[in-house]
Amino acid sequence: MSVLVVGSIALDTVKTPVEEHADLLGGSASYAAVGASFFTPVKLVGVVGEDFPEDHLTFLRGRQIDLVGLQQLPGKTFRWSGEYMWDMNIRETRSVELNVFEHFTPTLPAPYLDSPFVLLANIAPSLQSHVLDQMQRPRFVIADTMDLWINIARADLEALLTRVDMLILNDGEARQFTGETSLIKAGHKIRAMGPQFVAIKKGEHGCLLFGQNEFFSCAAYPLEDIHDPTGAGDTFAGGLAGYLAANATGAVTFEQLRHGVVFGSVLASFNVEAFSLERLRTLTQNDIDIRYQAFRLLSQFEVLR
Amino acid sequence: MSVLVVGSIALDTVKTPVEEHADLLGGSASYAAVGASFFTPVKLVGVVGEDFPEDHLTFLRGRQIDLVGLQQLPGKTFRWSGEYMWDMNIRETRSVELNVFEHFTPTLPAPYLDSPFVLLANIAPSLQSHVLDQMQRPRFVIADTMDLWINIARADLEALLTRVDMLILNDGEARQFTGETSLIKAGHKIRAMGPQFVAIKKGEHGCLLFGQNEFFSCAAYPLEDIHDPTGAGDTFAGGLAGYLAANATGAVTFEQLRHGVVFGSVLASFNVEAFSLERLRTLTQNDIDIRYQAFRLLSQFEVLR
Repeated sequence: MSVLVVGSIALDTVKTPVEEHADLLGGSASYAAVGASFFTPVKLVGVVGEDFPEDHLTFLRGRQIDLVGLQQLPGKTFRWSGEYMWDMNIRETRSVELNVFEHFTPTLPAPYLDSPFVLLANIAPSLQSHVLDQMQRPRFVIADTMDLWINIARADLEALLTRVDMLILNDGEARQFTGETSLIKAGHKIRAMGPQFVAIKKGEHGCLLFGQNEFFSCAAYPLEDIHDPTGAGDTFAGGLAGYLAANATGAVTFEQLRHGVVFGSVLASFNVEAFSLERLRTLTQNDIDIRYQAFRLLSQFEVLR
Repeated sequence: MSVLVVGSIALDTVKTPVEEHADLLGGSASYAAVGASFFTPVKLVGVVGEDFPEDHLTFLRGRQIDLVGLQQLPGKTFRWSGEYMWDMNIRETRSVELNVFEHFTPTLPAPYLDSPFVLLANIAPSLQSHVLDQMQRPRFVIADTMDLWINIARADLEALLTRVDMLILNDGEARQFTGETSLIKAGHKIRAMGPQFVAIKKGEHGCLLFGQNEFFSCAAYPLEDIHDPTGAGDTFAGGLAGYLAANATGAVTFEQLRHGVVFGSVLASFNVEAFSLERLRTLTQNDIDIRYQAFRLLSQFEVLR
């Protein structure tokens, strides 16, 4: 089954201690849509400006991503610029130009309205809710968020949480949102606010998945060199959503989510090996399968024979 | 087979945001010896003063810990006092009184000299080397260390590393020791300094185990409430060493280490549920088995049926 992905599409300028590149394909929906496309057809809702390179559209179309919901408006595309410090866990935003994204309202084309799987990639929670307002209740809705919305749109985020099946956020955000230092308490507290499942991303430490009386700790793939962490979380969310849409025939089970989280982590681990989405352009199903097996070996202590 | 444990024995005063207790049984060797004792007989080398409570000796003897190597000297026992902040990951040492520990030289009784498994719990690396000077080459030597020795006794630590099979240290120490922000690079770099295996402890994020071309990421048990983190790392090391001594018949394999690391994590997860070693006083083999199974469920995504 296909997955509907809604979020931001950007042109990024990214600087690391080693390299700097400008006008890269970026934005939460770009990473998420491409991540999901390795598992299932994707419908993309977002906005770009007149300056958006045709090459990027060709790349997205080539990944079987339906662009009927992609608005192209007069003006410039959303631009983001960030810099990573020597410790690549630390990032500073250098500039943000919202441009056409400033007044973006996600409007779903008619064929998108009954999408069973929805990934609300990171945008304002009011916009995420606006997407759901247009739809029949989808079978499974995943929302991603960030510290900005916890700070400036907490009520909107709390309202959204009552309408989604799963929230994804990182460890710092989970602590900030709940006021708990324990990530275990934080995960349970967020579940109590609505979503049946919560995934807390911990970067180099992997991620934690919470369900009702169920818990999964997913390891991180041991990468020695990270070239560009941008979009890792979005790619993770996309891989997870795509895996579920492709594999969940009835209600989504915790075991499917375990696998989905591993596949999301596999996709994210590839994505950070190069700038922007470059690594995903050449990624093959065989690459994914090999790294999936590596995840099994690195995290299972009773090895399957 | 039995395991020889050498390290500090202390009377601790520990304050958390909720509670404060004084004159608790503490020290790296106390936690490590009791942790190991759940798997195998233990020989303990350390020093205490005249004030060391007989009750503590009775407890250790009751755990089948051989105390022939325990020196009791005129003067007072080593005392340590620390305070945990609201975020229990943050600890401040309030006071240290070395007392009889100041001039401690670990001397092995004759029956200890051919111990096949040795755990050099956290003490000065020169003392750890002094233990090895007295022995035939043991079959498997694990050393634990801390930031203090990296700062003030780096050369001693580097000399020790060429003589041990495994080093255990925490994530901050691994970064400090190697100058690498990537824990993956740090693990490989430490292996290149001597030990065939390295375990990097990450507290709430579990631990990483490095071997030659082998890697294991061990999850942490999801505890909501931690009452006293003191000794978690020492208990981990003790559980690991005890498991290996009980189960490794030939050369220690990476698969045995995977299991050992999980059992060490199980022991540590119990230990932090109460102050000092209190939780381990009542811990049963059944408790351990149940939590071991829980570790399997929380970390394996292809569940064994």
